[in-house]
Amino acid sequence: MADRKIISIDGMGGDHAPRIVVEGLEQIAKTHPHLDFLLHGNETKLKELLASSPTAAPRTTIRHTDKEVAMDAKPSQMLRQGKGTSMWNAIESVKAGEAVAAVSAGNTGALMALSMFILRKVEGVHRPALVGSWPTRKGVCAMLDLGADIAADAEQLVEFAIMGAAFSRAVHGVQNPRVAILNIGEEELKGHESIREGARLMRASNLPIDFRGFIEPDKIGHGNVDVVVTDGFTGNVAIKTAEGIARMISDMLKDAFKSGPFAMLGAALILPALKGFRTKMDPRNTNGGVFLGLNGVVVKSHGGTDAVGFAKAVQVAASMGESNFRQEVEENLRRLAPAVAAGPAPAEQAAT
Amino acid sequence: MADRKIISIDGMGGDHAPRIVVEGLEQIAKTHPHLDFLLHGNETKLKELLASSPTAAPRTTIRHTDKEVAMDAKPSQMLRQGKGTSMWNAIESVKAGEAVAAVSAGNTGALMALSMFILRKVEGVHRPALVGSWPTRKGVCAMLDLGADIAADAEQLVEFAIMGAAFSRAVHGVQNPRVAILNIGEEELKGHESIREGARLMRASNLPIDFRGFIEPDKIGHGNVDVVVTDGFTGNVAIKTAEGIARMISDMLKDAFKSGPFAMLGAALILPALKGFRTKMDPRNTNGGVFLGLNGVVVKSHGGTDAVGFAKAVQVAASMGESNFRQEVEENLRRLAPAVAAGPAPAEQAAT
Repeated sequence: MADRKIISIDGMGGDHAPRIVVEGLEQIAKTHPHLDFLLHGNETKLKELLASSPTAAPRTTIRHTDKEVAMDAKPSQMLRQGKGTSMWNAIESVKAGEAVAAVSAGNTGALMALSMFILRKVEGVHRPALVGSWPTRKGVCAMLDLGADIAADAEQLVEFAIMGAAFSRAVHGVQNPRVAILNIGEEELKGHESIREGARLMRASNLPIDFRGFIEPDKIGHGNVDVVVTDGFTGNVAIKTAEGIARMISDMLKDAFKSGPFAMLGAALILPALKGFRTKMDPRNTNGGVFLGLNGVVVKSHGGTDAVGFAKAVQVAASMGESNFRQEVEENLRRLAPAVAAGPAPAEQAAT
Repeated sequence: MADRKIISIDGMGGDHAPRIVVEGLEQIAKTHPHLDFLLHGNETKLKELLASSPTAAPRTTIRHTDKEVAMDAKPSQMLRQGKGTSMWNAIESVKAGEAVAAVSAGNTGALMALSMFILRKVEGVHRPALVGSWPTRKGVCAMLDLGADIAADAEQLVEFAIMGAAFSRAVHGVQNPRVAILNIGEEELKGHESIREGARLMRASNLPIDFRGFIEPDKIGHGNVDVVVTDGFTGNVAIKTAEGIARMISDMLKDAFKSGPFAMLGAALILPALKGFRTKMDPRNTNGGVFLGLNGVVVKSHGGTDAVGFAKAVQVAASMGESNFRQEVEENLRRLAPAVAAGPAPAEQAAT
């Protein structure tokens, strides 16, 4: 059914590259027969790894380069010296139209800076945003911005809502995503001015988006909204807090499960029942953040992930590459324009 | 050894008041023989409950009032109409010097507004802050502001550091608290201007505080700092995110543990090993947020807590009331003044 799609891959980015990259391609190649790969990096190393990847190998074209972006490289330095690295070339392939999306597990700051520089922002988007997936009781929720920038005004929050809704449809398969703005209370009077004005603008604009108002962080897990919008500083704090707590609990559980013969027996008995829980909380299954708002799709994989996680990031890239994301965002940005032009609300009524 | 201390109690605040309030007093009375209680609320109801509280009853004085603050009352409304409520009177007892601290499980917004109004800010503190306790692998960490206000500039962050360190010493018993500012990276170039300037001011001022620079939210759980400082919006998002994730995981574990006979047997075998984990993650054990920066101590208990949690909040109040908190904060605010007067750093060097 589907046309063949080419995904551009940074073969050398990440803590365990290029091994987990090629292993990830082998995994995704099996389940996604219409994908081909343009793999950037050291040809000798990549060929060697592809030799034991029978499904991916015939569908992979290697583009050799000796240069790569160090995991601790400064973004500003990479803008000056990054040309010709596997990361740069992977993004460049998207710009050139050779691939529908790029994936890298390399240095986040460098990937963001190079993506912005090479692909440029979509017209009408003021700030790009990093979107990621957040597990909930009922499934998964999209959250943005997770740290592409540190601030966002009201209009930018609405742009995030537009992009987040399109992402939710494209990647999570939600037909009519419910969108909310992150706040510390559900009342209209709480939170920063930008947040309150953002909510007003969402309501004033004629967007085909199911806007649910504000959501408090402890309610995200209930799974009653599909997209949560916030500025990049707050979003980064929220996602890192969630990761930290989940990891602490998981470590403490593992320690308890190994703490003695009775506990180990108990753990063995309970393991099957914990399968759904472990799958949901497995960070590999929500791997793959996307930089939204650029002229092309770039997916950021966790640097420390394994083949399963990298395959998931490639799957996100494929979903984005096959979707109407771009068209939907452009249409909604056009719908937003009149509400922005109308300006902020007239002097607010005093709260009663 | 210790002199007798009187704690003022809002007998009617909280979802399960006055029952859990009096039960909580009975618990804390047993372990803290030097505490007496000034209990505000409906005399008939409170007397009835005290009749089955043989330890607390002889050390409790009831101050009758028929009025109470509704859990959904608006703070502004309570400022106009709250006089004579059990919450108002509990705070008033601190102002009058009858009690060393007040505790309420009532409406947070109202408690904050009435505390500010009745006790007023300490001279030299620009914004009061709500401090709370956050479980870590190694123990517990103090975090502020958790939402007394939504913003904080550099100087206010340093004031939070001063108050947080004094709280850590008074309540968590940490002799030399390690303090860090919450940020989305550890590098000096990341984050909001107020955060970066706050870190500079911490270093420039001659404070006897072990300042560790920035901390990312996923590192708090490692337990390598004792106090985390942030603005009230970010702090509220962080604590609610943590609570939400912890509750989601805990609910999923409970479901798994009850999902069938093998799982139930496994759970029974593993329960003893999970005791430490359950104690650490039990929100009752970190109950008791304190409004810092006022002329008097007010402790906010979770509204939905039980007797164990309420007793913990009273214990926090007692620790604060017996400490040098006030003196330490005043001394450090005096030390801070010259660095603030010296103004911000000269034009920053361009990053290399």
